[in-house]
Amino acid sequence: MKKVNFLFGIHNHQPVGNFDFVFEEAYQKSYLPFIEALERHPKIRIAIHFTGILLDWIKEKHPNYIPRVREMVHKNQVEILTGGFYEPILAVIPRNDRLGQIRKLTKMVKELFDYDAIGMWLAERIWEPTLPSTLAEAGIKYTILDDTHFKYAGLREENLHGYYMTEDLGNAVDLFPISKRLRYAIPFEDPQETINHLGFWASEEGNNIVVFADDGEKFGVWPKTYDHVYKNGWLENFLTKLEENLSWINILHFKETIESMKPLGRIYLPTASYAEMGEWSLFSKASEEFVNFEHYLMDNGKYEENNVFVRGGFWRNFLAKYREVNDMHKKVLRVSKKLWTLPDSQKTKSQKAFDHLWAAQCNCPYWHGVFGGIYLSHIRDAIYSNLIDAEKELDKLNRYSLPNIEIFDVNIDGFDEVLVETKHINAYFDSKAGGILYELDYKPLSKNILDTMTRRHEAYHSKLDRATAPGEQSDHTASIHDLVLAKEANLKSKLHYDFYDRKALIDHFIDPGVTIKDFSESRYTEKGDFINKLYTVTSFKSDKKSANVVFSRLGNVDGRQVLLSKAITINNADGIIAIDYQLQNKSSEPVKSRFGIEFNFGLQAGHADDRYYYTNGPRLDDKYLDSVGEIENTKFIGLRDDWRKLDIQLTTAQNATIWRFPIETTSLSEGGFERVYQSSVVLVFWDLKIEKNWQNNLKLIFSKIE
Amino acid sequence: MKKVNFLFGIHNHQPVGNFDFVFEEAYQKSYLPFIEALERHPKIRIAIHFTGILLDWIKEKHPNYIPRVREMVHKNQVEILTGGFYEPILAVIPRNDRLGQIRKLTKMVKELFDYDAIGMWLAERIWEPTLPSTLAEAGIKYTILDDTHFKYAGLREENLHGYYMTEDLGNAVDLFPISKRLRYAIPFEDPQETINHLGFWASEEGNNIVVFADDGEKFGVWPKTYDHVYKNGWLENFLTKLEENLSWINILHFKETIESMKPLGRIYLPTASYAEMGEWSLFSKASEEFVNFEHYLMDNGKYEENNVFVRGGFWRNFLAKYREVNDMHKKVLRVSKKLWTLPDSQKTKSQKAFDHLWAAQCNCPYWHGVFGGIYLSHIRDAIYSNLIDAEKELDKLNRYSLPNIEIFDVNIDGFDEVLVETKHINAYFDSKAGGILYELDYKPLSKNILDTMTRRHEAYHSKLDRATAPGEQSDHTASIHDLVLAKEANLKSKLHYDFYDRKALIDHFIDPGVTIKDFSESRYTEKGDFINKLYTVTSFKSDKKSANVVFSRLGNVDGRQVLLSKAITINNADGIIAIDYQLQNKSSEPVKSRFGIEFNFGLQAGHADDRYYYTNGPRLDDKYLDSVGEIENTKFIGLRDDWRKLDIQLTTAQNATIWRFPIETTSLSEGGFERVYQSSVVLVFWDLKIEKNWQNNLKLIFSKIE
Repeated sequence: MKKVNFLFGIHNHQPVGNFDFVFEEAYQKSYLPFIEALERHPKIRIAIHFTGILLDWIKEKHPNYIPRVREMVHKNQVEILTGGFYEPILAVIPRNDRLGQIRKLTKMVKELFDYDAIGMWLAERIWEPTLPSTLAEAGIKYTILDDTHFKYAGLREENLHGYYMTEDLGNAVDLFPISKRLRYAIPFEDPQETINHLGFWASEEGNNIVVFADDGEKFGVWPKTYDHVYKNGWLENFLTKLEENLSWINILHFKETIESMKPLGRIYLPTASYAEMGEWSLFSKASEEFVNFEHYLMDNGKYEENNVFVRGGFWRNFLAKYREVNDMHKKVLRVSKKLWTLPDSQKTKSQKAFDHLWAAQCNCPYWHGVFGGIYLSHIRDAIYSNLIDAEKELDKLNRYSLPNIEIFDVNIDGFDEVLVETKHINAYFDSKAGGILYELDYKPLSKNILDTMTRRHEAYHSKLDRATAPGEQSDHTASIHDLVLAKEANLKSKLHYDFYDRKALIDHFIDPGVTIKDFSESRYTEKGDFINKLYTVTSFKSDKKSANVVFSRLGNVDGRQVLLSKAITINNADGIIAIDYQLQNKSSEPVKSRFGIEFNFGLQAGHADDRYYYTNGPRLDDKYLDSVGEIENTKFIGLRDDWRKLDIQLTTAQNATIWRFPIETTSLSEGGFERVYQSSVVLVFWDLKIEKNWQNNLKLIFSKIE
Repeated sequence: MKKVNFLFGIHNHQPVGNFDFVFEEAYQKSYLPFIEALERHPKIRIAIHFTGILLDWIKEKHPNYIPRVREMVHKNQVEILTGGFYEPILAVIPRNDRLGQIRKLTKMVKELFDYDAIGMWLAERIWEPTLPSTLAEAGIKYTILDDTHFKYAGLREENLHGYYMTEDLGNAVDLFPISKRLRYAIPFEDPQETINHLGFWASEEGNNIVVFADDGEKFGVWPKTYDHVYKNGWLENFLTKLEENLSWINILHFKETIESMKPLGRIYLPTASYAEMGEWSLFSKASEEFVNFEHYLMDNGKYEENNVFVRGGFWRNFLAKYREVNDMHKKVLRVSKKLWTLPDSQKTKSQKAFDHLWAAQCNCPYWHGVFGGIYLSHIRDAIYSNLIDAEKELDKLNRYSLPNIEIFDVNIDGFDEVLVETKHINAYFDSKAGGILYELDYKPLSKNILDTMTRRHEAYHSKLDRATAPGEQSDHTASIHDLVLAKEANLKSKLHYDFYDRKALIDHFIDPGVTIKDFSESRYTEKGDFINKLYTVTSFKSDKKSANVVFSRLGNVDGRQVLLSKAITINNADGIIAIDYQLQNKSSEPVKSRFGIEFNFGLQAGHADDRYYYTNGPRLDDKYLDSVGEIENTKFIGLRDDWRKLDIQLTTAQNATIWRFPIETTSLSEGGFERVYQSSVVLVFWDLKIEKNWQNNLKLIFSKIE
């Protein structure tokens, strides 16, 4: 009788910072019913990975879940996989963090499930060939990748029904290839399709293996899958079908496989992930071209035989594609370095800080494919909150005195940034990008107020034309890869692309004819050349009271030379930042222009009752943070976040006009295209005629609402 | 006026172990005339990389060359690049070796040329994304890769006229893209083509850069290039043309570029090398398919726009493609680990050992493309010789006692190997591959006698049909990539493929009807299932006198169970290995078969007067090591290598028949297809009828000819 080995794994994960109700919904719709199904089918054996984030939550909210899984582990029905505790992309975090994260989850798996995990789930299957050295050091014997990875090394479908060894500098690890065919079949196609696929690979020798492993959320959390998988009985049918065929389908755990079967050979895999990630990690134009090329090959019947040679981008380029990703990543590296260079005695005391650091390495907001990723402000917020918490732990150790000013190329773009750290505030400035303030951490509330998002072209924006809004969609359960939904109608008209980063202290020279609509849609031309241009750090100094940095640029406005300088003074004892602006006309003709200073405030909810603008003058018609409007002749605007207990006040010495409008991105999520509020823009401006000099003082006051 | 920046670099290298006459020829035909040309054109500024191997040789043989180059360095005409001293593939050697190799060359560059090199030539441009961490640690600020690498990250031609930064864990390095267009134009096309290409990228801003960097040997050493480049004046014309256009072509050094220009941005490159390496590093079948796919795209006009998405294999798979490469590599790792774990005091004393180790990391025999690479036995020989020399240095430290037996998975294939080390011999056994002896180091002469090569299918073998032998070729100077030459006629008839590795103690059961021709061409069927099958280590032991290991396998011969066991005893005090064979018939019927034991001896020259077979009985008609013949009824065969002073004697207790024939591979080299002698096979056999038991004792005696 022909037989085949089937290895079945699921990966259950929720990102750091996700809403409690999302955890709960995923628990009720997927994590719980899935193991209930397994309890009904004790012969169906499976490998499960829970990230540490999820286990922490389950332990607290549904402690009875743990012994149920443990029971299945004891019966040898379930094998548990370890991984990085907070599901980091291992390749881009320091070795010590990798080891720390893996060991932390392995320890928890042992405590909760009484299981010695030696296999790991590699977050997003982001493979780099040097990983085996760290994995081996962390006690990992095997991990699970995609067939794609192996095909990129030149192997074919027929070579992928076993496992392989790989090594780096002699450090070995076993690698299993996940079948892409089954990733699309489970749970979307009829269970018989999976049985057929297994049948195809059954043989007299019975030594072929077929691997399915994918997100547990495909079973109930992805759109429409709850009805499909549970209410309409897909999973029950699937498990029953498997059971009926156990005479020839041998369900093996991964661990059993490496203990009982020999590898097919040794192989070396290039940098790779699952096939779709290749498309997503390309810059948007290349990504479109890549998809077109794939379609060309499909249309000409050349794709199947040649797709092993067709590849998209490299995961790390999310760091080049989105400055927001890079800024988080470089802050992670900075905090990690500070922690790991502590004397051992202080390291021991700083376990909380390490934990915050590791939580901040959770991969979800470091990339973007068809789910929200970097576009989700609450997920980014959690990253910054953890990083600032780690920094606050470091502050307590008094290793260096505050205020502290460092000038170096922290984001590795060839230009120096200026990092100012005080007791209440971290302020990071980017001289190259217009001397802007790009990170502003208000430490008492562990909040980066400049955790914003620039509106960029995404390759999938071209699909907006055929996206269907609620009510219009068909009820066919398509794979997430085929769905084109939109959470609201008419999103295309809200698509705008920025030509500069939506941060703060952005110096605009604009024509008075430019409307707030033009400006907010980035559809106008600057009269000056200050945006995105190089500023010089003219001076920097600090004493116990404050830190002071001066940026300046000799630029042009309408062809006339203007020297702009901005002096920023950050108090050490409170959340006050004073900014002195000076414009010097270096030409003989007067400079006539509207001059505006743009601030973005990323407070996560554009339309919530507990977050709003306020003034000390006229009452605002609409005070929501996604409101659009103009206030004339004012010296003040405030923003309140009652939920977070944050108050922000912006004052100007000279009367100004203030525009306010929201920045909203349009991006893909599990549920289709969605509009996401990212920040509230406050543009403070003056219509100037500068003969020689113009100056003004602004003040930003951050405080905690008691 | 439109201007452009041109960066011009060459890389001069000869492998460890190359013949002195090859060094000399390359010096006379390329290294010397090239700098003479530069002396005549002082305005042509260039970056030069010499590997440490070459500098060692030049220092000794042509010491006057050094001050001539130094003079040009002082005049700022020449910039010197550093690199790994012995030109290793950095990615596959341990971090400490990387640092040691780079620092050693940087130090020599400083001593010889009074130059602080901060840029490096990366051997074969084998890039991996974790390299920046080691490069930064070694003081490297920039390196030079191919445009291909950048295209694989999704960049296009138009994005590649500047340099980029990259980083790993915050460790930054600058990267320059070499123009593939110019790699093909220089020195093969009319110099005006290069000028035209530069003209195309010239701009009003004048900030585009165009990079050419490639092997110095293209200028005089590659076939026909000496006449073309020097006698027919190509280089003189080229440099003159450049000079005539210096009003708009600004020749910059790489170092000047990073000091005076800002990077185009930050980018992350996947594992990559130049485009051709992608084809070569694929397994042979996939390599053919890859080339066909490329041709399909070219024929349909889809290649140019989409080749950024078309990729071949991954360099590290040369370790999977050729066991010979992997065996060297794993020995390198073993020796490196032993050296770096020495106490610091012993490390200092072992500088010679480190140097041998690093020399053994020279990349040339670790891969194969269109040059000889792994197929060149004299280059492999140098690797083993250096490794054994390093081991002998370690022996002197008396850190562990000899004999030493270790059983573990040294080659990382999922099965244990047996490593026996005595004072005179290292003997490595592969239980999985038929209990064969696969490395046999005779330490007194630092020679691995089993440094052989198996005959394998290579993708390019299909081109043998259209290869032209001497006298037949056209005199068009084609790029090395287009040439299909053969060093002799009728090579195709000499193409044979082995189904097992050509090592020693290979246990054959063959039909007496199989001729020596069939056998030597691997065109016959085994009657037994011992070849390539798993043997068990039945026992192993050692005392001061010797080490003893017993392998056995219960297999089948013509459907009858046979227990084969071979006990190997290796003396500690001399070069004598005793092998006791026992065949037990476990069936009730007699086993009738020819039983043969195969030995390969890799003595590098098949047809040289100082290397030959001898007997103690009949005089041999042809005693060359590439001779084919049978000796009946004998107990002895000897091999002498008078050049190396090595004597090998093989004796058998029972009279036997002995076949001898050479293993010759057909592979590509700079000069086209060539036949390379790899080893001399000695098959000792008996026509047996085994009722119960058969046994025999063999002896291998290695000695140094005094």
